[in-house]
Amino acid sequence: MIRVAIIGATGYTASESLAILLRHKEVKVTYLTALPEECGPIAAIFPSLRGRIDLPVEPLDLDKAVDRADVVLCCLPHKVSMGMVPKLLGAGLKVVDFSADYRLRDVRVYESFYKVPHTDPENLKRAAFGLPELFRPTIVGKDLVANPGCYPTCAALGLAPLVREGLIRLDKIVVNMVSGVSGAGRRANLTFHFPEMNENYFAYSVGTHRHMPEIEQILSDVAGRPVTVLFQPHVAPFTRGMMGSIYADPIRPIQQKELDDLYAETYRNEPFVRLPGGPPTISAIAGTNFCDVWATTAKGKVIVFSALDNLVKGAAGQAVQNMNILFGLDESLGLL
Amino acid sequence: MIRVAIIGATGYTASESLAILLRHKEVKVTYLTALPEECGPIAAIFPSLRGRIDLPVEPLDLDKAVDRADVVLCCLPHKVSMGMVPKLLGAGLKVVDFSADYRLRDVRVYESFYKVPHTDPENLKRAAFGLPELFRPTIVGKDLVANPGCYPTCAALGLAPLVREGLIRLDKIVVNMVSGVSGAGRRANLTFHFPEMNENYFAYSVGTHRHMPEIEQILSDVAGRPVTVLFQPHVAPFTRGMMGSIYADPIRPIQQKELDDLYAETYRNEPFVRLPGGPPTISAIAGTNFCDVWATTAKGKVIVFSALDNLVKGAAGQAVQNMNILFGLDESLGLL
Amino acid sequence: MIRVAIIGATGYTASESLAILLRHKEVKVTYLTALPEECGPIAAIFPSLRGRIDLPVEPLDLDKAVDRADVVLCCLPHKVSMGMVPKLLGAGLKVVDFSADYRLRDVRVYESFYKVPHTDPENLKRAAFGLPELFRPTIVGKDLVANPGCYPTCAALGLAPLVREGLIRLDKIVVNMVSGVSGAGRRANLTFHFPEMNENYFAYSVGTHRHMPEIEQILSDVAGRPVTVLFQPHVAPFTRGMMGSIYADPIRPIQQKELDDLYAETYRNEPFVRLPGGPPTISAIAGTNFCDVWATTAKGKVIVFSALDNLVKGAAGQAVQNMNILFGLDESLGLL
Amino acid sequence: MIRVAIIGATGYTASESLAILLRHKEVKVTYLTALPEECGPIAAIFPSLRGRIDLPVEPLDLDKAVDRADVVLCCLPHKVSMGMVPKLLGAGLKVVDFSADYRLRDVRVYESFYKVPHTDPENLKRAAFGLPELFRPTIVGKDLVANPGCYPTCAALGLAPLVREGLIRLDKIVVNMVSGVSGAGRRANLTFHFPEMNENYFAYSVGTHRHMPEIEQILSDVAGRPVTVLFQPHVAPFTRGMMGSIYADPIRPIQQKELDDLYAETYRNEPFVRLPGGPPTISAIAGTNFCDVWATTAKGKVIVFSALDNLVKGAAGQAVQNMNILFGLDESLGLL
Repeated sequence: MIRVAIIGATGYTASESLAILLRHKEVKVTYLTALPEECGPIAAIFPSLRGRIDLPVEPLDLDKAVDRADVVLCCLPHKVSMGMVPKLLGAGLKVVDFSADYRLRDVRVYESFYKVPHTDPENLKRAAFGLPELFRPTIVGKDLVANPGCYPTCAALGLAPLVREGLIRLDKIVVNMVSGVSGAGRRANLTFHFPEMNENYFAYSVGTHRHMPEIEQILSDVAGRPVTVLFQPHVAPFTRGMMGSIYADPIRPIQQKELDDLYAETYRNEPFVRLPGGPPTISAIAGTNFCDVWATTAKGKVIVFSALDNLVKGAAGQAVQNMNILFGLDESLGLL
Repeated sequence: MIRVAIIGATGYTASESLAILLRHKEVKVTYLTALPEECGPIAAIFPSLRGRIDLPVEPLDLDKAVDRADVVLCCLPHKVSMGMVPKLLGAGLKVVDFSADYRLRDVRVYESFYKVPHTDPENLKRAAFGLPELFRPTIVGKDLVANPGCYPTCAALGLAPLVREGLIRLDKIVVNMVSGVSGAGRRANLTFHFPEMNENYFAYSVGTHRHMPEIEQILSDVAGRPVTVLFQPHVAPFTRGMMGSIYADPIRPIQQKELDDLYAETYRNEPFVRLPGGPPTISAIAGTNFCDVWATTAKGKVIVFSALDNLVKGAAGQAVQNMNILFGLDESLGLL
Repeated sequence: MIRVAIIGATGYTASESLAILLRHKEVKVTYLTALPEECGPIAAIFPSLRGRIDLPVEPLDLDKAVDRADVVLCCLPHKVSMGMVPKLLGAGLKVVDFSADYRLRDVRVYESFYKVPHTDPENLKRAAFGLPELFRPTIVGKDLVANPGCYPTCAALGLAPLVREGLIRLDKIVVNMVSGVSGAGRRANLTFHFPEMNENYFAYSVGTHRHMPEIEQILSDVAGRPVTVLFQPHVAPFTRGMMGSIYADPIRPIQQKELDDLYAETYRNEPFVRLPGGPPTISAIAGTNFCDVWATTAKGKVIVFSALDNLVKGAAGQAVQNMNILFGLDESLGLL
Repeated sequence: MIRVAIIGATGYTASESLAILLRHKEVKVTYLTALPEECGPIAAIFPSLRGRIDLPVEPLDLDKAVDRADVVLCCLPHKVSMGMVPKLLGAGLKVVDFSADYRLRDVRVYESFYKVPHTDPENLKRAAFGLPELFRPTIVGKDLVANPGCYPTCAALGLAPLVREGLIRLDKIVVNMVSGVSGAGRRANLTFHFPEMNENYFAYSVGTHRHMPEIEQILSDVAGRPVTVLFQPHVAPFTRGMMGSIYADPIRPIQQKELDDLYAETYRNEPFVRLPGGPPTISAIAGTNFCDVWATTAKGKVIVFSALDNLVKGAAGQAVQNMNILFGLDESLGLL
């Protein structure tokens, strides 16, 4: 049994991780931590977990973490995370980090988008970027995995085949995305107060979202040369899931069959990328670790639709997938 | 033109009042106030009002209120309101007060449920209880109207005919109610954070809701003897509207026709009480000043369904109805 | 491995059963059937199941059912079900039936509420009523289980302790319930068209709902004497889950501690009844096989709140629980 | 008083028209028609209108229409409409037509997208295209107005300033739009069944939506040369409103101030186009006749956000605006 600790256990990605791990037959959750003022029985924080687990959420004690766990799912926010991760690694724990702190290789880009100095460039260099479908070999054997952002995972799985094959212009990609509200986190805010968000929809972070450089880094890695995207997120009144509607300029005419074959070939052995053969829906991926992708053409553009659950394949599910890789387990354990 | 000020202009009842008053041909909104830190252009606070009104929201200045307005819609919370209302009345303004401060005649009941001392018993005695369908004659000519609570309005309009006629036991009434989330006000709170409230539903304030004594006061006034109710509120994932499902014990067998005739007779001349002849729906009353009521019998009980929009007939609409009465206008101006 | 067939595989209870069975380690789904015009790949009918199972949905062939399966989850509507079940039983299959056809012992009550003649009274006599928490011993060893209705399960688990102990009057119980829209089934209907049902809420089947006699039968069995309830259902704009707010008259004063102890004792060994110690919420039970119950007192009444997911503990989850009992498995397999 | 008939009075655009006209002081609704099987009291069809109007919905009788009305809001579907409109015009009535039948000047384009022969090319030539902000002078004095589609109105008001000034490439415009579900009409359909559409979101009509040529026609008229767009609609789980996120390639660098000035200048005198100066929201325009527009730049693209209520500015509100123009009334009567 692999023993798992969750640090920062009071947010949505933590509760989703717990729900997944409780169904994972090779794993036992042994330690849950949070800020002292947020601690208590897990059932008081997440009533849906009552009767399924009775661990308390405790203030973090590094010795206890080392004593009780083999691996940590670190669900802290950016900046806080890079203060904690070196200690966890130093104590010999493996870490899957949910924050942005170990995702962007270029510290200057990180500092420009996140507005804080990067305080752990050493571990940043050792971190694997945990998007298994694109970078699996680089994850194996690591002790620190940067779990990707939800938007970047969704956009990259949709675009990777086209970018890798060089079928589209790499400087003209528009990534229009729509997310459910759980992406905003579990913290009260007037914008997401039910009467404000219900029956509402809007764009945000126009031209400035922090996931833009992350999408570009992934796709540039896949392409082997620089890719630039215009990423525009929106929020819609549902709780889980996100979809990208991605518009790109093909470098030559492409037939539907060529697209279908390319995606089928690329994702042939991937258990978590599905090809529905038409527009994906949020309801088909909600609560699952699947990313549903469809590429087509219209009016001289390539359009790619890509959908996943921001809390699962976009966070907790992908983290468990990465954890499974770190421990040499079947990658889909707990996730199907 | 009657000049109206709204004090406490940043909540849902204020924005709803504005939306109504902008369609009221005998009225002009002239002054909007809020706490200094919440002030600004009204369109920045309520974007839906952009292009319809361009008054600023200003910190309250009593002289300005007196100078600019004839009547105040006082949308302050309880306790704060009774600190302000005496000044407004003293300056010669008429006041429709949205808080609970002038609703409960018995100061001890108020203090027991609201947990604060009542600081303005003098004006409490002068206040009219602004439920026109039941107490119209007592509102005419007053300068202070206590605008009733949403739940009490809904429950009382549903029960009044039965209570007045003595057709049900007065000590065994169960008032089960379900409200939309706007009833919780325009203040962020984890309970009403979209991902928490969406796809959710629950009971609250079990046995202790502050509207319970208000319902009992109204019905006791109607009955001419004490009425006790068990009032149990719930919240469901829609923004506007509320419905009561009310269960009572008839003192003798009652036929549907007798109920239909009684309600038709009671509300014959009321423009804002509708009798759909079957279960009302929230969608039929949302955004309107109507209260839809249907009484029937089943398994030896009388069941009454009563539905209204908590922000309109349960707050802003009823306030305008009361204001129309104070100024001798057609009671339905601005409301149909 | 127990081999399971699902007959009537295109509705919500069938897809929920599939989702549960795919996580059940002692079971294999081997056969799915539907009306010929609704057949096809399961992923075309339920896109969320793509990549998890690739059985086709086929027109029913009894020989195939016998050949491939040990047990049938029969998800047909009432009346249709009692035409099919005798054949399945006759062929030696065990059956968990989701319809109402084998729930009501008194054929006249069935015929009065369902408006069709009962055509299989023989098997009705053999059927177990599959509410394990109340009737477990009578389920063991049977080959036909009538899976209870969602409302009856929810109401009965909430009321059983009080009824069994004789703590409340048995002729004055008001069961006010609110359900999500999936309870209406997977069939388009203007009432449940999104723009009609969204932001809406209403009562239906006033005094006439078919689950009323089922609730009474269960509680009468528990009490050992006749119980009558007024059951009033409502529908609210969420997809899954239901809650009862139940009002009863205690026969003597009851303290909270007595209630708490009674419920704790009653459900001490039940894995699927939770006692949150306060008002339950739909979000805590959605997607789970739990029923959350809280009893309290107010204004001389006992109030019981009981919540469950209508598709899980109210249908597919309870069916799997019953199936586990039929095969002598751990009752919670696949359900935690 | 202008007397208005509504033909096809059982859909959402008709009920929205009624709600608007009931607040319009120069107008009286005098005649409502529908298919015989859909007729009845208006309050039975639209319960929210009970107590506000008591006209019956009757089968159409052309003589009655002529006798009772000066103008017809024709809310029939495409194809049906062009069978009716010639008769209405022939009888001397003015017509605002909600269907697509008189919008596309090129009959071949119409026939290619709507898959039916156009049977009334004569009146098509006489019809004004009723988008007042862009084509007001051509509407004045007409007797037939083709009320534009919701998506085309929204896209065109967002793009018109850029297209007219030639600031963007006219062959590379991506119009990504998201609509509420009322756009699908008031007809039950499994796709829009509440449990299917709730918590869902998806793209549809990929590359083929009928509003694509309408958007191109409007923008080509504005530009004075051919404009091509890739229009991609999506549906999200809210009832009213739609938003375009429009991506275009500027022909030269553009500063925010230039954009702000251009839009301010273009819409300076327009009561129904608002410029919030940042991303618009659906909640700000829901229930209003406003279109909220914001243009900005990011990553070398121009992005325009444009939002309106599909039932108001996208249908009934714009129809009343057009009707006001036909009768020489203040264009905003009934709409503010």
